[in-house]
Amino acid sequence: MAPTKEQILYDLLQQSDTDALTELLEKMTTREIIHAIDHLSGDDRIALLHLLPNELAAEIMEEIPDYQAGSIISAIPVAEAAAIVEEMHSDEQADLLMEIEPKAAEKILANMNLETADEVRQLISYDEESAGGLMITEFIQISENKTVLETIQYLRAEQEAFNEYQVKYLYIVDKRETFQGVIQMHKLLLAAPDIKVGHFVSKAISVKVTDQLQELINFFDENDFFGVPVLDNGQRMVGVVLRKSVLEAASERDTNDYLETQGIIGGDELRSMPVWLRAKRRLSWLSVNILLNILAASVIAMHQETLTQVIALAVFLPIISDMSGCSGNQAVAVSLRELSIGTVRPSELFRVARQEFSVGIINGLVLGLLMGGAAYLWQGNVYLGLVAGGALSINTIIAVCLGGTVPLFLKGLGVDPALASGPILTTVTDMVGFLLALTFAGAMLAYL
Amino acid sequence: MAPTKEQILYDLLQQSDTDALTELLEKMTTREIIHAIDHLSGDDRIALLHLLPNELAAEIMEEIPDYQAGSIISAIPVAEAAAIVEEMHSDEQADLLMEIEPKAAEKILANMNLETADEVRQLISYDEESAGGLMITEFIQISENKTVLETIQYLRAEQEAFNEYQVKYLYIVDKRETFQGVIQMHKLLLAAPDIKVGHFVSKAISVKVTDQLQELINFFDENDFFGVPVLDNGQRMVGVVLRKSVLEAASERDTNDYLETQGIIGGDELRSMPVWLRAKRRLSWLSVNILLNILAASVIAMHQETLTQVIALAVFLPIISDMSGCSGNQAVAVSLRELSIGTVRPSELFRVARQEFSVGIINGLVLGLLMGGAAYLWQGNVYLGLVAGGALSINTIIAVCLGGTVPLFLKGLGVDPALASGPILTTVTDMVGFLLALTFAGAMLAYL
Repeated sequence: MAPTKEQILYDLLQQSDTDALTELLEKMTTREIIHAIDHLSGDDRIALLHLLPNELAAEIMEEIPDYQAGSIISAIPVAEAAAIVEEMHSDEQADLLMEIEPKAAEKILANMNLETADEVRQLISYDEESAGGLMITEFIQISENKTVLETIQYLRAEQEAFNEYQVKYLYIVDKRETFQGVIQMHKLLLAAPDIKVGHFVSKAISVKVTDQLQELINFFDENDFFGVPVLDNGQRMVGVVLRKSVLEAASERDTNDYLETQGIIGGDELRSMPVWLRAKRRLSWLSVNILLNILAASVIAMHQETLTQVIALAVFLPIISDMSGCSGNQAVAVSLRELSIGTVRPSELFRVARQEFSVGIINGLVLGLLMGGAAYLWQGNVYLGLVAGGALSINTIIAVCLGGTVPLFLKGLGVDPALASGPILTTVTDMVGFLLALTFAGAMLAYL
Repeated sequence: MAPTKEQILYDLLQQSDTDALTELLEKMTTREIIHAIDHLSGDDRIALLHLLPNELAAEIMEEIPDYQAGSIISAIPVAEAAAIVEEMHSDEQADLLMEIEPKAAEKILANMNLETADEVRQLISYDEESAGGLMITEFIQISENKTVLETIQYLRAEQEAFNEYQVKYLYIVDKRETFQGVIQMHKLLLAAPDIKVGHFVSKAISVKVTDQLQELINFFDENDFFGVPVLDNGQRMVGVVLRKSVLEAASERDTNDYLETQGIIGGDELRSMPVWLRAKRRLSWLSVNILLNILAASVIAMHQETLTQVIALAVFLPIISDMSGCSGNQAVAVSLRELSIGTVRPSELFRVARQEFSVGIINGLVLGLLMGGAAYLWQGNVYLGLVAGGALSINTIIAVCLGGTVPLFLKGLGVDPALASGPILTTVTDMVGFLLALTFAGAMLAYL
């Protein structure tokens, strides 16, 4: 079998062969690079970065997950780190330095070009999920008094610098650097050379530096733009938020939300993170959960008498607990999604409860029949079937109504619904489920 | 309290006031429109579409979720539907018509402009998650023999048509319409007027019409393009896939994956869908799950003897079942994410098992101590604590190792890991957990 690119990378790394490493990495896809870096030891990663030219090292830092990049950059010598960070795009610089200890970040910044460092400090000060945190600061600003010809000459002169820019718009400002509007570069093609650019700017649509991710998502939903200028409080233009950056941040947020619903605190875990960190973050959610579980199980403890007399019921209690959790979490998932696309609002608790109730009736009956039937077949006792099936039916209805509404309720309170909905839901439905089954059994004790 | 926009919309709809409705809808945000449409009755939706000018109706169809748009468009008269669909963008036309019954779609197509209808039929024939399914067909194609001046004149002449286009690139083809390469429009600015455009095309990077979503995601990870030309088998250019479309499709896929992990088959549910449809899709997953649950609980049934003698254990069985499910699902979530960003591959089962094992040891011990302690405190019997805590500890380790590896295993088999990982995981860990607790209890029966 031919060696994989990763094996070759590893061998070249041991031989410290910079040229061959550079060539190899340039041929690898982002996914291959992410995978390879993830599988290197900490020392090997540092050695790799040290061998590569800074521009390539910077590119790799931009491609791999922020957590990985942060752990590498804070482990290499400060001067080397600064040289690599200097080569990165402005928004990526800030993202990376926000990932590491503030003191370590400041040391790296102190080793950088003064102007760049100040810009990055400014970017770091913004909320990561705001326009300020998502914007890039590489854009072309033109004074409204310039003519089309002057502008074209300026673009030609600076062609090389601007070639690197992602944004093919010109941002027009007045004398006080107040933002006036946008011109798409290709519009210069069709314009008379002596006209002033200020004369044909498009409407000055912009966002504020403090606008939050959700506002930006809505903005790009409304406006079919490639990017939008970002203004500070004084109406000065400080950057451009690209649609791409907003979509990527939205996708990251969605993924984090999903990981949080499964109890990954912070919504971010890579298996290359230290074991104790992974264990701690998962555990902090699990340990709350086990306490809630013990609380729910105390309902069983209080009905041991009944249980002793109908030991068969002990078989059904875990099923009730598990199934009501499943049914409820389906409703939680639908609510989280409807909240995110906007078809439901936190105030619509009753509407959602009603809509879930209809589904709950159908599914509760079917599941109850299934479990009741199984109980009857197993013990030949129709009353046991009634107890088990009845408890599951009613509890399913309660679970879906609760599952649908808890996320709305939490969202209304300003609490993150992804993290808390599951544990709250299952605790309540476990308790109710156990209570129903044991109470029904207590009432029918004579027939069981 | 002032009436909300939605109330006003509803009132204007009752009054059939087209002008006021148009004005209102143009002021509403996408989220507001989605919410309002979602809350209208089926008849009101049809009435609304009927009142609006076709262009606005088309815009609304593009903004609301596909399922909703599909249910509206198949409920209105065919001629009206065709007129609305004609006003939509090519990729949205296909998405919408794929949402409804093929026969109904064909009826609408038969009422449309012949050429457009043929284009849409072609688009529908592509896989929805392929380049063909995601591309737009509005792009500017220029023959390589044209000069810069001729091209600029052509652009000026067609200015109005092209103004609607999202893509500001020129796609250069040879005499046989074979794709040659791309020119960014603003590059024409800096070029001599008499040079042929064929002389300064950028490298002819393109994708195939059959390329799948994941390949397109990788492509845009590698290439910082706004969009990429799509070629058919004969190297003819048939459309452009925008980065935006790929990011949106990726985000939709992630959301669907999350909904599937929670047992929403198809990954798509809106509460405005018919109750029986929602109930049926949820139930098909739940009913498999309850059978698996009954299977797991049969372990308890087989150990009823032990349970009768240590009834206190019945309190702990649901906790073991629930907690091992939680721990395992955390590992499932991390694996699903690592599969999607590429840090792990299906072949790396053992590596992941090892990495989960370390976390499992720590969290298993902590959770075991918590539950063992609770059991001891409750009954004052150290052996009961050992049985309950020990079973949970060991089962947690098993659950996280399984949870981490099952998604990789399923992915390797080509089975969707989002839908199946959870049920498989919890069934196995429930069975093992019950078995551990009851076997331990059986062994220590004398002390319990």
